[in-house]
Amino acid sequence: MIERYSRPEMAGIWAEDNRLRLMLGVEEAFLEALAGRKAIPASELKAFKAAAHQGLHQKVVALEAQSGHEVIALLAAVSAVIQDSAPAVNRYLHYGLTSSDVLDTALALQLRQAADILLKDWEEVAGRLRTLARAHAQTWMAGRTHGVHAEPISFGVKLAGWHAEALRNMERLRRARETAGFGKLSGAVGCFTQAGPELELEALGKLGLKPEPVATQVVPRDRHADYFHALVLSAAAIERFATEIRHLQRTEVLEAEEPFGKGQKGSSAMPHKRNPILCENLCGLARLIRSYESAVVEDIVLWHERDISHSSVERVILPDAHIALDFMLARFKKVLDGLQVHPERMKENLDRSLGLVFSQTVLLRLVDAGLSREDAYELVQRSAMKTWKTREPFLKSLQADPAVTKTLSKGELAACFDLDSYKGAVQELLARGGVA
Amino acid sequence: MIERYSRPEMAGIWAEDNRLRLMLGVEEAFLEALAGRKAIPASELKAFKAAAHQGLHQKVVALEAQSGHEVIALLAAVSAVIQDSAPAVNRYLHYGLTSSDVLDTALALQLRQAADILLKDWEEVAGRLRTLARAHAQTWMAGRTHGVHAEPISFGVKLAGWHAEALRNMERLRRARETAGFGKLSGAVGCFTQAGPELELEALGKLGLKPEPVATQVVPRDRHADYFHALVLSAAAIERFATEIRHLQRTEVLEAEEPFGKGQKGSSAMPHKRNPILCENLCGLARLIRSYESAVVEDIVLWHERDISHSSVERVILPDAHIALDFMLARFKKVLDGLQVHPERMKENLDRSLGLVFSQTVLLRLVDAGLSREDAYELVQRSAMKTWKTREPFLKSLQADPAVTKTLSKGELAACFDLDSYKGAVQELLARGGVA
Amino acid sequence: MIERYSRPEMAGIWAEDNRLRLMLGVEEAFLEALAGRKAIPASELKAFKAAAHQGLHQKVVALEAQSGHEVIALLAAVSAVIQDSAPAVNRYLHYGLTSSDVLDTALALQLRQAADILLKDWEEVAGRLRTLARAHAQTWMAGRTHGVHAEPISFGVKLAGWHAEALRNMERLRRARETAGFGKLSGAVGCFTQAGPELELEALGKLGLKPEPVATQVVPRDRHADYFHALVLSAAAIERFATEIRHLQRTEVLEAEEPFGKGQKGSSAMPHKRNPILCENLCGLARLIRSYESAVVEDIVLWHERDISHSSVERVILPDAHIALDFMLARFKKVLDGLQVHPERMKENLDRSLGLVFSQTVLLRLVDAGLSREDAYELVQRSAMKTWKTREPFLKSLQADPAVTKTLSKGELAACFDLDSYKGAVQELLARGGVA
Amino acid sequence: MIERYSRPEMAGIWAEDNRLRLMLGVEEAFLEALAGRKAIPASELKAFKAAAHQGLHQKVVALEAQSGHEVIALLAAVSAVIQDSAPAVNRYLHYGLTSSDVLDTALALQLRQAADILLKDWEEVAGRLRTLARAHAQTWMAGRTHGVHAEPISFGVKLAGWHAEALRNMERLRRARETAGFGKLSGAVGCFTQAGPELELEALGKLGLKPEPVATQVVPRDRHADYFHALVLSAAAIERFATEIRHLQRTEVLEAEEPFGKGQKGSSAMPHKRNPILCENLCGLARLIRSYESAVVEDIVLWHERDISHSSVERVILPDAHIALDFMLARFKKVLDGLQVHPERMKENLDRSLGLVFSQTVLLRLVDAGLSREDAYELVQRSAMKTWKTREPFLKSLQADPAVTKTLSKGELAACFDLDSYKGAVQELLARGGVA
Repeated sequence: MIERYSRPEMAGIWAEDNRLRLMLGVEEAFLEALAGRKAIPASELKAFKAAAHQGLHQKVVALEAQSGHEVIALLAAVSAVIQDSAPAVNRYLHYGLTSSDVLDTALALQLRQAADILLKDWEEVAGRLRTLARAHAQTWMAGRTHGVHAEPISFGVKLAGWHAEALRNMERLRRARETAGFGKLSGAVGCFTQAGPELELEALGKLGLKPEPVATQVVPRDRHADYFHALVLSAAAIERFATEIRHLQRTEVLEAEEPFGKGQKGSSAMPHKRNPILCENLCGLARLIRSYESAVVEDIVLWHERDISHSSVERVILPDAHIALDFMLARFKKVLDGLQVHPERMKENLDRSLGLVFSQTVLLRLVDAGLSREDAYELVQRSAMKTWKTREPFLKSLQADPAVTKTLSKGELAACFDLDSYKGAVQELLARGGVA
Repeated sequence: MIERYSRPEMAGIWAEDNRLRLMLGVEEAFLEALAGRKAIPASELKAFKAAAHQGLHQKVVALEAQSGHEVIALLAAVSAVIQDSAPAVNRYLHYGLTSSDVLDTALALQLRQAADILLKDWEEVAGRLRTLARAHAQTWMAGRTHGVHAEPISFGVKLAGWHAEALRNMERLRRARETAGFGKLSGAVGCFTQAGPELELEALGKLGLKPEPVATQVVPRDRHADYFHALVLSAAAIERFATEIRHLQRTEVLEAEEPFGKGQKGSSAMPHKRNPILCENLCGLARLIRSYESAVVEDIVLWHERDISHSSVERVILPDAHIALDFMLARFKKVLDGLQVHPERMKENLDRSLGLVFSQTVLLRLVDAGLSREDAYELVQRSAMKTWKTREPFLKSLQADPAVTKTLSKGELAACFDLDSYKGAVQELLARGGVA
Repeated sequence: MIERYSRPEMAGIWAEDNRLRLMLGVEEAFLEALAGRKAIPASELKAFKAAAHQGLHQKVVALEAQSGHEVIALLAAVSAVIQDSAPAVNRYLHYGLTSSDVLDTALALQLRQAADILLKDWEEVAGRLRTLARAHAQTWMAGRTHGVHAEPISFGVKLAGWHAEALRNMERLRRARETAGFGKLSGAVGCFTQAGPELELEALGKLGLKPEPVATQVVPRDRHADYFHALVLSAAAIERFATEIRHLQRTEVLEAEEPFGKGQKGSSAMPHKRNPILCENLCGLARLIRSYESAVVEDIVLWHERDISHSSVERVILPDAHIALDFMLARFKKVLDGLQVHPERMKENLDRSLGLVFSQTVLLRLVDAGLSREDAYELVQRSAMKTWKTREPFLKSLQADPAVTKTLSKGELAACFDLDSYKGAVQELLARGGVA
Repeated sequence: MIERYSRPEMAGIWAEDNRLRLMLGVEEAFLEALAGRKAIPASELKAFKAAAHQGLHQKVVALEAQSGHEVIALLAAVSAVIQDSAPAVNRYLHYGLTSSDVLDTALALQLRQAADILLKDWEEVAGRLRTLARAHAQTWMAGRTHGVHAEPISFGVKLAGWHAEALRNMERLRRARETAGFGKLSGAVGCFTQAGPELELEALGKLGLKPEPVATQVVPRDRHADYFHALVLSAAAIERFATEIRHLQRTEVLEAEEPFGKGQKGSSAMPHKRNPILCENLCGLARLIRSYESAVVEDIVLWHERDISHSSVERVILPDAHIALDFMLARFKKVLDGLQVHPERMKENLDRSLGLVFSQTVLLRLVDAGLSREDAYELVQRSAMKTWKTREPFLKSLQADPAVTKTLSKGELAACFDLDSYKGAVQELLARGGVA
C-alpha cells in the first residue's frame, strides 16, 4: 500500500486485519447457515464469535510461513483458539468450502466498503462543484478550443460540466459496487459437491451479497475488471479538471490558482514560484491508476477452473488504486476549497482576442441578411486574419470592409459584440448539469 | 481498418460513406427542426435529401485536401449540389452548429449501429453455448485448478459458466450502447449561443438520441471510454473460452478440438499437425483490443473546451476494435459449431488421477465421523502423497492406512469415490447460468 | 493498415506483395545454400528467380482460403509455376524448413527496411532542429516550470534539448534495428533436425542477418518487444515537442505557431480560428502507438515451442505503428518547416512576470553577501509575493525592503536583473546538444 | 512499497533514508567541487559529512509537512545541524542548484544500485539454467507447438533457449543502467545560470555519473522510460519460463514440477493438490510490472521545462517494479533449485503421439526419394490423420499405404523413427545458448 497517499479510513479497509475479519465473517455466516443442519449449538457459535477475532493477524502470518497457504493458516489459527470451547464449530468450520469461497466473498465485502468511501468522497467534491458553479454562473471567460479562444463561456457552466461528469462517475461507482457484490460459497470447483446452493444463498444473504450464478473455483474476474473501470474513469475525470486548473494558472493566463499555503515554498532555487503542484500530482496519480487496468483485464483469462496468477496483481493493485483515488478525491476537494478565481483577469484575457470570439455571430448575421454561408465565412475570415496579423480590433477590421458593411449596418455589426447575447442558456445548462 | 478481419456489415458501418451519410442525417434532422423557425420550404428539404447523398465521398476528399477541415469540406460539397435547387437550405445548413455537433452526433449513431451487430453476434454465440451446455450436462471431466485435477465437473456446467459470462457481456454492451447514445447540437463551446436547447432536443429526438447535459465543444470522452470497456471485456471473455479449448486440445489432454477443415494443413513441415490456431488467433485479437484501451482513456483529458488529439485515436481504434471483436465473435461461433468433444477421453483423463479428485469427500466423511478437520486433512494428504509417488490408486492407499479404516468402513470409503454424488447441483447450475 | 496516415514508401514495406517477395527471398537464399549439397542446377535457380515473383499475391490469397495456411499456399503457388521449369528446385524448396523460418526471417528484413525509413525521417527532423536551434540561440523567452515562469531560457537551447532527444531516439532505432536483425532457419522446433546450422549461417549471411542463437519454432518475441519500444519512445518525443508548440500557440502566449495553410479553415463555426491541429494530431498518434505496447509485450509469453497468438497482433500493430510513426515524423518536419516564431512576443511575455524570473540571482547575491540561504530565501519570497499580489515590479519591491537594501546596493540589485548574465552557457549547451 | 514481496537489500535501496543519503551525497559532491572556488574550508566539509547524515529522516518528514517541499525540508534539516559547525558550508549548500538537480541525480544513483542487484539476481538464475541445461542435454521430450506434439526436443536445449533469453535481458539491464546513469547539476531550467558546466562535470564525476547533455529542469524522462523497459522484458522472460513449468506440471503432462515444501498444503478443500502456485504467482507479477509501463512512458511528455506529474508515478512504480522483479528472480531461482524433472514421463508422453512427431522425416525421405513436396505431404498427412483417428501407430499406417511403401522400403521407413537422428545439433545449440 502506498503509505504517502494513504488516508486512514481507506487504508483500514485494505489492512490485513480487516481482511481477516471479513474472512472470518464469511466463515461465520456459513456456520450459521449450517448450524441447523449439523446441530451446532448456538452457544458454540457465540464462543466462536468472541474468540475468533482476537489477535489473529500475527498467528496467521506465522502459520502461513509453514503451510504456504493463507486460508489454511487462518483456519489453523482459529482452530487453536476454539478447539476446546467450540468443538462442533471446530469440526464444521469451512465445511465443504474451498479457500476462494472465503477469499472472494470477503473481497466482495471489501470492495463494497471501499466503493462507499469513494462515493462519499465524490459527493463532497460534487457538493463543492455545485456551490462554485452557482457562484460563477455569470463569471465570463474565454471558452478555448485547441488552446485558442473560441467563444465566451461562463465559468459556472464549465463547472456544471464537471459536475455532470462527477454524477456520471458516481453512477458508475454505484453500478460497480453492485457488479462486485457477488459472493461464492459453492466449493472446490463451484459445483456444490459438499454443501448445496441453499446454504450459499442463506449465508450470502446474511452478508448482503448475491450468489455468483455459475462460478469456477473463483468469482469470475470480469466482475472485478468491470468494477475497476469505474476507478479509472473517476481518476480520469479528476485529471481533466486538474489539467484545466493547471492551464488556468499559467503565468500568462492566471485566471485561477490552486491554494498556496502559508509557509509553502514553490522552489528551492526560485523564491517567487507558486506552482500548481497539487493538480500536477493529481494528473500523475490518474496515470498510475489508469496503467493498472491492463493487468486487471488480463486476470480474466484464468486457466480452466482457475489459476492463482490474479492474486498477486490484486494484492497490489486493488489497495493501491483505491488508496490513490481516495487521496485524489480528497486532494481535489482541498483544491476546490482553496481555489482562487480571478474574474477580472478572465475578462482581461477575453478582451485580448480583440473581439474575435464573436466571429460566429457576425457570420450568422450575414447569413440571416441573405449571404450564403460560404460567402459569409470568407468575409469574416478575411477580417479575422487581418486582426490576427495587425492586432487591430476585429470590429474595426469588419467596419473597414465594404463587402461587410454593405450587408450589415454599423449598429447591427456592433450588436454582434454584445456579451449579453451569449448568456441565454446559462440557467438551462446549470440545470442540465444538476447544479441549478 | 483491418482488412483481414473485416466482415462486410461491420466494416460498412465504419466506411467513410456511412459516416458521411450519418453526418448528413444529423444536418438534416437539425434543418427539419429549424424549418419552422426560419421558413425553410418543405420542398427544399426534400430536394436536399434527394440531392445531398449522391457520390459525396470523392468530393469531400478532394475539398478536404484544400480546407484541411472535414466538415467544412462536406458542407462545401453539399452546397455545390443544392445551392440552386434549395437556396434556403443552403443558407441555413449547419446554422449555429460547430463541426463536432455533427461529428459526435454521427459517432453516437455509428456506435449504436455497431453495438447492435455485436449484440447479434453475442446472441448467436450464446445460443450455441446454451445448446452445447444442455447437451453436455452429464459429460463428466476433471475440473482443474492450477492445471491440476481438482474435482469432477460437468462439461455442461463449464459451458453454463461461459453462457453466464456471455449474458453479462451482452448486458454491458446494452448499457454501453445507452451510454454512447448521447448527441450534441449546442454549438461552438456547447453554450447554445446561436440556436437554443429546444432545437437540439427536437433534432436529437428525430435521431433517437438524448442530449448531452453539459457538453464542451464535444461530447465528453468519458462516455466513449466507458463504452469501450464493454468491447474489452467481451474480447477477454472470448479469450478465456478460447484458452480453455487450447488447453483441452493439447496432445496429452485431447478432450476437445476446434474444427479442422477438409484440405486444411497444420504445418508446412509436419504433416501430422492439427493445431488450435483459430483459438490462438482469438487470444491474439483479445490482446489487441485490450491494448487499445489506454489510448481511449487518455482521450478523456482534452484541454479546456476540447482539443482534437482524440480524433486520430478514434479514427483508428474505434473501427479496428469493433471489426476485430465482430470477427472474434463470428470466429468463435464457428469454433463452437465445429467443436469436437471427446467424452470418452474426458473419462479416461479423469481416471488418470487415480481417484485423487475425490479427496475432499473422504476428508469430509472423516470429519462427519468425528475427526477434527486438521487430523482428517493430514490423513487424507498422507495417502494422497503416497498415490502421487507410487501411482497406487488413492482408494487403495486409504484402505491401507489403519488410521483411516478405523474411522471409515470399507464401504463408506468406496462410497466416497462415487461420481453420482457429485451430480446433484447440475440442473440448478444450468438454470442459474441461463441455459436450462 | 491506416490508409489516412500511410505514406507510400512505408506502406509499401508492409504491403502483402513486399512481404511475399521477402519470403521468397528467404527461400531463395536457403536454396542457394542447399544447391551444392543437393545438386540443384544453377539454371534452375535462375528460372526460379525469374518465375517465382510474378503475380503471386492473388494466387496465394486464393490458395490460403483452401489450406488455411499462408506459407503452404505460397509454396503451392510457386510450385505451380516452376514444377516443370525447375523440378529440382521444386523438390527442395522449403526443404527441412518450417513456415516460421520463412515468416520470421522475412519479418526481420521488413523491420530493417522500416527502421531505415524511420531513421531517415528522424534525420530530416533533426536537421531542421539543428538549423532552428542555431538560428534562435539568442532568442530569449520565459523558461517555464509547472506552466509558471521560472528563469529566462534561450529558445535555441530548448531546441537543442529536443535535438539531443532526437539523437537518443535515433541511437535507439539503430540498436533496435540490430536487435531485430536475427533470422532463423532451424526447422520445426529450432533443432536443425533436417538441415544443419551451417546451412542457416550461409543463407542468413546472404540476407545480411545473424542467426538466432537458440530459437523455438519462432524467433523469440522479446526481440520484437525490445524493438518496438524504440517506436514508442520516438513517438513520445514527438508528442513532447508537439505539446510544447500547442502551449506556445495558446492565445495568451502566442510565442510560436504551427503553419496555417492558405485556404485552410480552422472551424466551421468560428472563422477566426487558427488552431494547432497538426500538433494535436501528433499527440493523439503518440497515444495510439504507446497503447500498442502492452500487446507486443504479451506476445513474448508463447506456449512451449510457440503458439500463433502473436500473429494477429503483429499483423495489425507492426504496420500500423510504423505507418503512424513515419507519418508523425513527416508531419512534424512539416510543422518545423513552417513554424512561426514570435521573438517579440517572447520578450513581451518574459516581461509580464515583472522581473520575478530573476529571483534566484537575487537570492544568491544575498548569500554571496553573507546571508544564510534560509534568511535570503525568506527575504526574496517576501518581495516576490508582494509583486505577485500587487503587480508591482519585483525590483521595486526589493528596493522597498530595507532588509534587502542593507545587504545589496541599488546597483547590485539592478545587476541581478540583467539578462546578459544568463547567456553564458548557451554555446556550450548547443554544443552538448549536438547542434553547435 | 509492496511489503509482501520486499527483499531487504532491494527494499533498502528504495527506503527513504537511502534516498536522503544519496541526495546528501549529491550536495556533498557539489560542495566539494565548489570548495576551491568559494573558499569552503576542508574542515567544514568534514564536519558536514559527519553531522549531516544523522537521523535526518524524521526531521525531513516534519519539515516537509510545513514547507510542502521535500528538498527545502532536507536543506533546512541539514542547516539546523551544521549552521554553527560549518557556516561556509551552510551558506553554499545547494548553491545555484534546483531541487531536481539533487533529486534526479540521486535517482540515477538509486537506479544504478537497483540494477546491480537485478543483474546479480539474473546471474544466479542464469547459473542454474546453465547447470540444468547441461544436465538435461540428452533428456528428450516432445517439442510442442500450439500445445500439440511437434518434433522431439532436448529439455537441455529448451533450457539453453531460456539461458540465451536471460543473457539478452542481462545485456538490456546493463545498457539500461548506463542509460540511466546521467545526472544533472545545471540549475533551475538547466541553463547553468548560477554555476557553470565545469562544476557539474566535476561533481558528477565524483559520483560516477555523466552529465545530461541538455536537461530541462529535470533529466528528460525518456531515459527512465528506456530504462524501465528492461524491467518489463525481464519480467516477461520469467513469465515465459514459469508458464512452461505450469504447462509441464499439468496432471496429464507432469513432466516437471516446481518444489512443494514439507508441510505445504495445496488446497483447503482438496488434500491431494500440488499446484504450481509459485509459477502462477510469477505470471501475475509480470502482469503487474508490464502494466506500469504506460504510466512511465506518459511521464516523458512533461510541460515546458517540466511539471511534477511524473513524481507520484515514480514514487510508486519505481520501487514497486524493482521490488517485484527482484522477488520474481529470487523466487524463480528457488523454483529452479527445487525443480523436479521426470524424464521417464517425458519419454512416455513422447510415445503417446504414436510416432507422429517423426512425420517431417518421413516427408523429406519421400522427397529425397524423388516425390514432389506436395505429393509427399499428402501421403504423410493421409497416414497421420488415420493415426489420429484410429490410434494406430503412425509407422504402421505408413506401412499399410502402398503409395508410401513403393517409394520407401520397410527399413527406410523404420529409420525415420529413430530418435538418434534428431540429436545432431544439441551440442551446437547448447554452445550457441551460452551453456556448453
